[in-house]
Amino acid sequence: MTANTKPRKPHILVCNDDGIEGPGLHALAASMKKLGMVTVVAPAEHQSGKSHAMTLGEPLRIRKYLKNNHFFGHTVSGTPVDCIKVALSHILDEKPDLIVSGINYGSNTAMNSLYSGTVAAAREGAIQKVPSLAFSLTTYENADFTYAAKFARQLAREVLRRGMPPDTILSANIPNVPEKEIRGILCTRQGRSRWEESAIERHDMYGNPYYWLAGSLQLHDDDIAEDEYAVRQNYVAVTPISCDMTDHRFRSELETWGLKSTFKK
Amino acid sequence: MTANTKPRKPHILVCNDDGIEGPGLHALAASMKKLGMVTVVAPAEHQSGKSHAMTLGEPLRIRKYLKNNHFFGHTVSGTPVDCIKVALSHILDEKPDLIVSGINYGSNTAMNSLYSGTVAAAREGAIQKVPSLAFSLTTYENADFTYAAKFARQLAREVLRRGMPPDTILSANIPNVPEKEIRGILCTRQGRSRWEESAIERHDMYGNPYYWLAGSLQLHDDDIAEDEYAVRQNYVAVTPISCDMTDHRFRSELETWGLKSTFKK
Repeated sequence: MTANTKPRKPHILVCNDDGIEGPGLHALAASMKKLGMVTVVAPAEHQSGKSHAMTLGEPLRIRKYLKNNHFFGHTVSGTPVDCIKVALSHILDEKPDLIVSGINYGSNTAMNSLYSGTVAAAREGAIQKVPSLAFSLTTYENADFTYAAKFARQLAREVLRRGMPPDTILSANIPNVPEKEIRGILCTRQGRSRWEESAIERHDMYGNPYYWLAGSLQLHDDDIAEDEYAVRQNYVAVTPISCDMTDHRFRSELETWGLKSTFKK
Repeated sequence: MTANTKPRKPHILVCNDDGIEGPGLHALAASMKKLGMVTVVAPAEHQSGKSHAMTLGEPLRIRKYLKNNHFFGHTVSGTPVDCIKVALSHILDEKPDLIVSGINYGSNTAMNSLYSGTVAAAREGAIQKVPSLAFSLTTYENADFTYAAKFARQLAREVLRRGMPPDTILSANIPNVPEKEIRGILCTRQGRSRWEESAIERHDMYGNPYYWLAGSLQLHDDDIAEDEYAVRQNYVAVTPISCDMTDHRFRSELETWGLKSTFKK
């Protein structure tokens, strides 16, 4: 036997959407270091709500970020999806074995998943054929990432062992409670809860109006199979999110519309 | 019978991601005026690739936009999704009967749908419970919106008549050819073609590097049921896109992983 038979440590790329200073990113990176070699590439600025946006028409900057005077990772002056693209094309020498995104401040359940930069970073990883996971903690206040970081490591280890199907990710939402209060792990689907929109109108010093987007989450989930409901019952909710957004059920119905003949009129 | 029995004209909200000056927006608005009352709310600036991003942490401005000295519509200083949110909460007095988004310069087939602000604007409409459609022309150059605008009106009329299921949209991609060369209308699924990433590295006047995202579309579609392949064969491709991103097939497989017991170790 040669030294080469020793299993190579997995290489894990860590990203988020709260930006390089997000405590959830640091908790996730520290947890992943127990599994393998970690590279951090995160947005230079807060990028919540940026979904799968990429930066076109303006250049991106890559900078080194120090933590306690030691190199911690790279920042990219763009979105979470930009981070993944630039990491794979310019920062990493090899394709990583795994991409993990988070741990996000605030849940990415139900319709929130559509707006989430955390989920999108992982999805960009899947598009680039790297097994990818997203993690979110269900709170904006008094966040304790201890159990979430441990769970992330458990799920990451499982995915490194099993692999992932193409074009899909796992998005895990973890309740912000101590581990002993976690009731279990559920495989969930994206719930139906959504934001009731309102935009707050204010006026500037010239009397001109401006608007802040705001809203409140309207709960429509009442089934433990739905991620938003599951996390409210203190379950960890693991939802597989596909890169294929086709509504396959409606597609069958659409075939019956007879679009072709309708439009020949 | 009273005057009230006369059918009320439908109210159609028109948006895009290429911004208020996009010729595809003007072609779409003109076409929709033959169906009903039109309100245009579009991004003040070009917003390609912004996906479902919304603006958090900075205010939005709404401005009136004149065309030939006449009021044409409102601009919003944000993303396509911001436009829909602000239009429904602050610009329109009533919920519109239909939202149409486009006509986009360039196709939104296959993985492009994930990055598309055009598709996202329509999807935000569906989240807000308004039947919504996205339209894209498969070219960046020598665009002729004539047939695409006519097709958009035909599909819009059909959807106004039939309605749409909740949480789904139709995203239509129209080949940039004269109507007589269109081979038909197909109900398609999101294809698998994706961008091969590359970021172009340049150096500024101080010698520091910066990066432009770039890439080329790698074709993986070879089935006429896939949108990217269909448009290349000169078919109009109509793909239903769901707000539910759950990978339902993989969810069943995930159940067999036994996550709960694994993690009790």
